[in-house]
Amino acid sequence: MSTSAHPPIAARPFPAELRTALAQRFGAQLSTALAVRELHGRDESPFDVPPPDAVLFCESTADVADAVALAAAHGVAVIAYGAGSSLEGHLLAVEGGLCLNLSRMSRVLQVHAEDLTVTVQPGVTRSQLNREVKDAGLFFPIDPGADASIGGMTATRASGTNAVRYGTMRENVLALEVVTASGEVLRTGTRARKSSAGYDLTRLMVGSEGTLGVITEITLKLHPLPESVAAAVCSFPDVAAAVNTTIQIIQSGVPIARCELLDANAVRAVNAHDKLGLKVAPMLLMEFHGSPAGVAEQTATVQEIARELGGEDFHWATTPEERTRLWAARHHAYLSGLQMRPGCRAVTTDTCVPISRLAKMVTTALAEAEAAGLPHFLVGHVGDGNFHIAYLIDPTLPAERALAEQLNAGVVRRAITAQGTCTGEHGIGLHKQDFLVDETGAGSVAMMRAIKQALDPLNILNPGKIFSGK
Amino acid sequence: MSTSAHPPIAARPFPAELRTALAQRFGAQLSTALAVRELHGRDESPFDVPPPDAVLFCESTADVADAVALAAAHGVAVIAYGAGSSLEGHLLAVEGGLCLNLSRMSRVLQVHAEDLTVTVQPGVTRSQLNREVKDAGLFFPIDPGADASIGGMTATRASGTNAVRYGTMRENVLALEVVTASGEVLRTGTRARKSSAGYDLTRLMVGSEGTLGVITEITLKLHPLPESVAAAVCSFPDVAAAVNTTIQIIQSGVPIARCELLDANAVRAVNAHDKLGLKVAPMLLMEFHGSPAGVAEQTATVQEIARELGGEDFHWATTPEERTRLWAARHHAYLSGLQMRPGCRAVTTDTCVPISRLAKMVTTALAEAEAAGLPHFLVGHVGDGNFHIAYLIDPTLPAERALAEQLNAGVVRRAITAQGTCTGEHGIGLHKQDFLVDETGAGSVAMMRAIKQALDPLNILNPGKIFSGK
Repeated sequence: MSTSAHPPIAARPFPAELRTALAQRFGAQLSTALAVRELHGRDESPFDVPPPDAVLFCESTADVADAVALAAAHGVAVIAYGAGSSLEGHLLAVEGGLCLNLSRMSRVLQVHAEDLTVTVQPGVTRSQLNREVKDAGLFFPIDPGADASIGGMTATRASGTNAVRYGTMRENVLALEVVTASGEVLRTGTRARKSSAGYDLTRLMVGSEGTLGVITEITLKLHPLPESVAAAVCSFPDVAAAVNTTIQIIQSGVPIARCELLDANAVRAVNAHDKLGLKVAPMLLMEFHGSPAGVAEQTATVQEIARELGGEDFHWATTPEERTRLWAARHHAYLSGLQMRPGCRAVTTDTCVPISRLAKMVTTALAEAEAAGLPHFLVGHVGDGNFHIAYLIDPTLPAERALAEQLNAGVVRRAITAQGTCTGEHGIGLHKQDFLVDETGAGSVAMMRAIKQALDPLNILNPGKIFSGK
Repeated sequence: MSTSAHPPIAARPFPAELRTALAQRFGAQLSTALAVRELHGRDESPFDVPPPDAVLFCESTADVADAVALAAAHGVAVIAYGAGSSLEGHLLAVEGGLCLNLSRMSRVLQVHAEDLTVTVQPGVTRSQLNREVKDAGLFFPIDPGADASIGGMTATRASGTNAVRYGTMRENVLALEVVTASGEVLRTGTRARKSSAGYDLTRLMVGSEGTLGVITEITLKLHPLPESVAAAVCSFPDVAAAVNTTIQIIQSGVPIARCELLDANAVRAVNAHDKLGLKVAPMLLMEFHGSPAGVAEQTATVQEIARELGGEDFHWATTPEERTRLWAARHHAYLSGLQMRPGCRAVTTDTCVPISRLAKMVTTALAEAEAAGLPHFLVGHVGDGNFHIAYLIDPTLPAERALAEQLNAGVVRRAITAQGTCTGEHGIGLHKQDFLVDETGAGSVAMMRAIKQALDPLNILNPGKIFSGK
């Protein structure tokens, strides 16, 4: 088990002929201005890496295909860029190259309300998508903290607060259009809800972090807006009581829609950022979807479980506005937490374990963070067994980063021992490459590399991510 | 669009040295008796192909690994065999080789009731698994018609009657142990319910039909046995009314657990086989899971939809025994149907389409079958958009087989036009290789071939399936 080192930088040449060819084909869509490049050379990860050599604002699948073909002809790296909200360095140009900004590909192409499916371009954001399908009585449940792009969410196999009931991008992507490493356009999957037609290329692309193809179109499952929705917060004497409540909820089979844990530090942060008056104590933030009677049943069961484990009475968000305010606060928790230590950056854990192992995982991780004395807060999609501790470090102090990485490595080591994963939803990127080997073994990583080599023999698609080198 | 031709037979040499090495390593576990080989050279598909050269009864992962390594050293094909219930020729030895019978690897290794997971060997059957987890208050929902093996169900991405609510093998496999083409043992996935750790090798193996690895261990999601279960049959004046009822159920978001269509021919067949007195008319066979109040709500909604579309009153299966009898009859429908024409074999369609397209798909397909004058019956997992027409052919009459294939090709062509798939759950095998190209395009199939070539460069793992040649 090793902590993650700083990524190696190995910029390749970016030939003048490629620059000329791109400028001829794309005109003002291409930018080599330093400010633009620097904007596309950062994400929410704590790494500093030189920016890409150029940025192309793609407007169509043909743009992407032509750009990839030109880059392939010169052996230059291509990095797809959605909303820039990834946390593990996914879009950093460790080998230089061409950044493909897909944010202008932001059309919702087809809403098939009668089939509960939608087809979108990769630059559509999750909030935009939900605005556009709301009038049809539908919603798309996957909601990472940031207002991420659907393309980026697909590429990192993202999830969020609703995954406990509705699944992750793995379960909700039906079909894709992909530009391959040679610039060919192909399709995977169909709009049918299930299929046994050959290898599951859709699932192979979901979570491939831009290393096997550039995703240019995504067909998703939608879900009917629930007839009835109820949200509540419940405070607990300690984190263990909140987690044990969650474990019992899941084991009892209650189809809870959201079950989020915030520790006292996280509650303090969202109170300050969103001007809320939540009790500063470990808290579960829950939501229930269903018919009115179904929601009443679910909440009765959950209240009983919580009460037995020391939870206080539920505080209900009775209006849609109050509910929206609470969930907005939850989605801001990461930014709210960062503001607890001005100028800091965060090293964030993302382990996910079988639900029965969660209480021990969380309490041990928090005790170690306390003992280390590093400012931190915890939020968690605990219904899935997934939680995040953000260690707030002063980026000018290498010792703090090393300490945070050491704490993270301990959390990961225990998660793997508990038959869990080093990353529930953020992906491997630059940051968790050693952990991937620890988790899945050298043989499985070798199999991943063999697939990468077969589909991208020149190693131009987001090189250096998931695993280093060819 | 082409109909499927008979598979090409291209047996490779099976060297005497390999036979000797296998006999030395495995003793009486190896059989080259013609009767044993012939038993392993047939499945439920309508193809006749010479049997494998030898059959090995594997008892452990080490057996599988050693056998694959020996076969690899001689470039001999290896075919994994579970329960022999595949429908598309998956296990036929079109290039000869060694059949690995995995039925002795039939242990349920670990039940983690507290995490709703179970780990099994590949030879465990679905009914065995459910017997072993029932006392823990859990069940495994995926139920193809046959009592298939979990390994085979994983390899074909199987589903069944519960998929409308609980998903298919795609959604219910968490982790695998796999023997690679070189005889290496590796693991994919973990027991965590979600993960973003690198390429989704688990989903790549699910549905790979034994062509990328031999699955030797499977970790599955389990589900709590529902508190309340209700099953009912409802007869309709015609198939269209039954399908339109299904469409409205799905669109309304009712979490129905099972929603199966039987046409009048299928009802007649199960009546005869299972000594039931069901009304001979198109019928929906439904099941509802949940709390007592939740089930009452679901059934009220569904009864209202059915009544509006001409459905008769529900006939309830009020006791568990009656419910079991009805579902057993549904699971026997394929065999029951075959008995309608003694000595026949079946050519079976397996298309799956977006739900709004289902009524037109089904009625057109049935009208064409009627017009062609071939005996047939229809059963369908219509809640998923998936249905099967079995054309009952006299295997001694090539014209009947050609006619059935022609009808099937028409169904597939319309399904692909409707943005659906040629196979919802049976797989490609030998039978649907041309359809796979029609459905997904030459580029996607080339990508599948590139993956196959990368992971099995000697093409020893179930060669000739999904796509022909190297």
